[in-house]
Amino acid sequence: MSRIGILGGGQLARMLVLAGAPLGLRFLVLDAAEGACAAELAPQLKADYRDEEALARFAGEVDVATFDFENVPADSAEWLATRVPVHPAPRALAVAQDRMAEKTLFSELGIPVPPFAPVDSRRSLDAALAHVGVPAILKTRRFGYDGKGQFRLRSGADADAAWAALGAAQGGLILEGFVPFDREISVVAVRGRDGAFRAWPIGENWHVDGVLSATLAPAVVDAALARRALDHARRVAEAVDYVGVFALELFVRDGEVLANEMAPRVHNSGHWTIEGAETSQFENHLRAVLGLPLGAVDARGWSCMLNWIGAMPTRDAVLAEPGGHWHDYGKTPRVGRKVGHATLRAETPEALAAVLERVGRALAREAQVAPVLARLRS
Amino acid sequence: MSRIGILGGGQLARMLVLAGAPLGLRFLVLDAAEGACAAELAPQLKADYRDEEALARFAGEVDVATFDFENVPADSAEWLATRVPVHPAPRALAVAQDRMAEKTLFSELGIPVPPFAPVDSRRSLDAALAHVGVPAILKTRRFGYDGKGQFRLRSGADADAAWAALGAAQGGLILEGFVPFDREISVVAVRGRDGAFRAWPIGENWHVDGVLSATLAPAVVDAALARRALDHARRVAEAVDYVGVFALELFVRDGEVLANEMAPRVHNSGHWTIEGAETSQFENHLRAVLGLPLGAVDARGWSCMLNWIGAMPTRDAVLAEPGGHWHDYGKTPRVGRKVGHATLRAETPEALAAVLERVGRALAREAQVAPVLARLRS
Repeated sequence: MSRIGILGGGQLARMLVLAGAPLGLRFLVLDAAEGACAAELAPQLKADYRDEEALARFAGEVDVATFDFENVPADSAEWLATRVPVHPAPRALAVAQDRMAEKTLFSELGIPVPPFAPVDSRRSLDAALAHVGVPAILKTRRFGYDGKGQFRLRSGADADAAWAALGAAQGGLILEGFVPFDREISVVAVRGRDGAFRAWPIGENWHVDGVLSATLAPAVVDAALARRALDHARRVAEAVDYVGVFALELFVRDGEVLANEMAPRVHNSGHWTIEGAETSQFENHLRAVLGLPLGAVDARGWSCMLNWIGAMPTRDAVLAEPGGHWHDYGKTPRVGRKVGHATLRAETPEALAAVLERVGRALAREAQVAPVLARLRS
Repeated sequence: MSRIGILGGGQLARMLVLAGAPLGLRFLVLDAAEGACAAELAPQLKADYRDEEALARFAGEVDVATFDFENVPADSAEWLATRVPVHPAPRALAVAQDRMAEKTLFSELGIPVPPFAPVDSRRSLDAALAHVGVPAILKTRRFGYDGKGQFRLRSGADADAAWAALGAAQGGLILEGFVPFDREISVVAVRGRDGAFRAWPIGENWHVDGVLSATLAPAVVDAALARRALDHARRVAEAVDYVGVFALELFVRDGEVLANEMAPRVHNSGHWTIEGAETSQFENHLRAVLGLPLGAVDARGWSCMLNWIGAMPTRDAVLAEPGGHWHDYGKTPRVGRKVGHATLRAETPEALAAVLERVGRALAREAQVAPVLARLRS
């Protein structure tokens, strides 16, 4: 009976525990937060990631460690890796934690990316602007997520304001060309300890205020484009000898895919796999981390995941749908917080559209389902 | 956020917790056993079902109570029901707890049953034998499960030995005609608080030494026979105003179905629904108990559940199958104990047969899969 340590105790850890219990796995969650939502289902070690004493205790109690949170300090992950197997490895985590290292790797692998340049002073911002052009986005290299730590520049005249907003950020900045993309898609994939690689069907994602709002899977995309996206994901995983589940987010523009970023963990755009695929991203992450055979990633029909942000809506309209599945993370409501999601599954795109229309109306979420409906009916 | 109390903390409670967590439910398990396997995932109140103080505390902490164990004393269930909603209701539980009441109800509803008669003395055993005939089985009216508390009589000459074995049992006995059945099937169904009724596709079951060994679902049965079995289940549920999931076990003989017994809870022969149906028996039980809309019960392809008794086999051969799913209850191995199960799912009976053949060989469980293979290939 293996015990898995998870750094971070949010909803991703919670869903890992739910997927791992049937495999006979036990868990220990390391999280400083009071009331971390995974702690309802697994013991929690309440401590900061930098607390060496806690890390030592954690390492002593688990057989393998993994992450629910990608911004665990690289030092902590490396220290831990000297004591217990850690997957994904700290090196892979470090690349994904730094937008500059990540974009550089993508470029080296021949994966198209928007133009980018490092920024470490007000003056280098000007140089970066000259290289990247406008519009552009100034981003922190580290610790950004859900659109936080970003400043959009419409012209060179915005440089002072951008620098004022982010110049003091730790870890440096990166300027990226703003891509007027047609779509955002993601590859959620898993790589085993033995190098086995599987990717779930690609999902199309819609964000609102930088936060994922809806995912449709399988995405309605050209087969050749899908193959390129999957191939990019595989090459990134192999380059960093990745073990576990990760997501590669990409932009689609004029039939071309551009890599945006890699999330070195199970990913919100893969939540649909719980009911919409033979094996969920959560179970396959655990299988990978333990060196077990990977499960099948075939989709079952068509799925749409809707994120619930801030507070949970009422659940009956979703539960009343034959393919309606509900996920309440048990969190206290708070503005902007991911508190749950629903997955709606159907056998055909037409049936899924009908379900989304009913659910959108019943929950007064017409705007949230509208872009998915438009895609399904295009 | 509702809190569900479960009387009993075994694997059924464990799987209820796993199904309920995504619905945002919290749980409290009442079980006297040290190390009850549901307690890994939910708080446990360690007390006997007859401990009134513990029952009062339990009632005070939960919004609704249900069962993982059907032999909770009827008095305790009734006492609890005066404090908090209990589903299924104690009256339904009482009928299912008493083989005599159960068989009498089936008869009253016009549902065919094997001949039966009550036995409460050595003399009444002779009268029962005259009515029922031989071969027959003498059973305790209460607290029997997995073939325990039973004695088979081949002729009237076995009466003394049968009485010696079971005559002292609490709660009386019942003599049932032994049915030389062709098959054993079960209907796993759910009834909502509002009377809504849904039954998963019928499963065919194989027992070894009185303990379930394998379930195939959907069963390969004649459509008219399946309709009769489903109709029987619906009428039993309506007669006792049942709320929640239950199983009706039936014998098939010469194209006729005979009701054997009702289990007033989620049932081992419904475990395949976790991966093999749109909504599992565990989730639908919770939906019913809470008065939520019931989920769809359609099967996804073909599933075979294999029980692991005594100790877990190695898991890799099952995990290596595309439709292979593993369930380890986290229990200490012990002879005769249900410690886990696997569900193998495939899109066609032929594909499922191929999977079972591989898994049976890899785990040296050829005998366990043989009757299922024979049915799939018949």
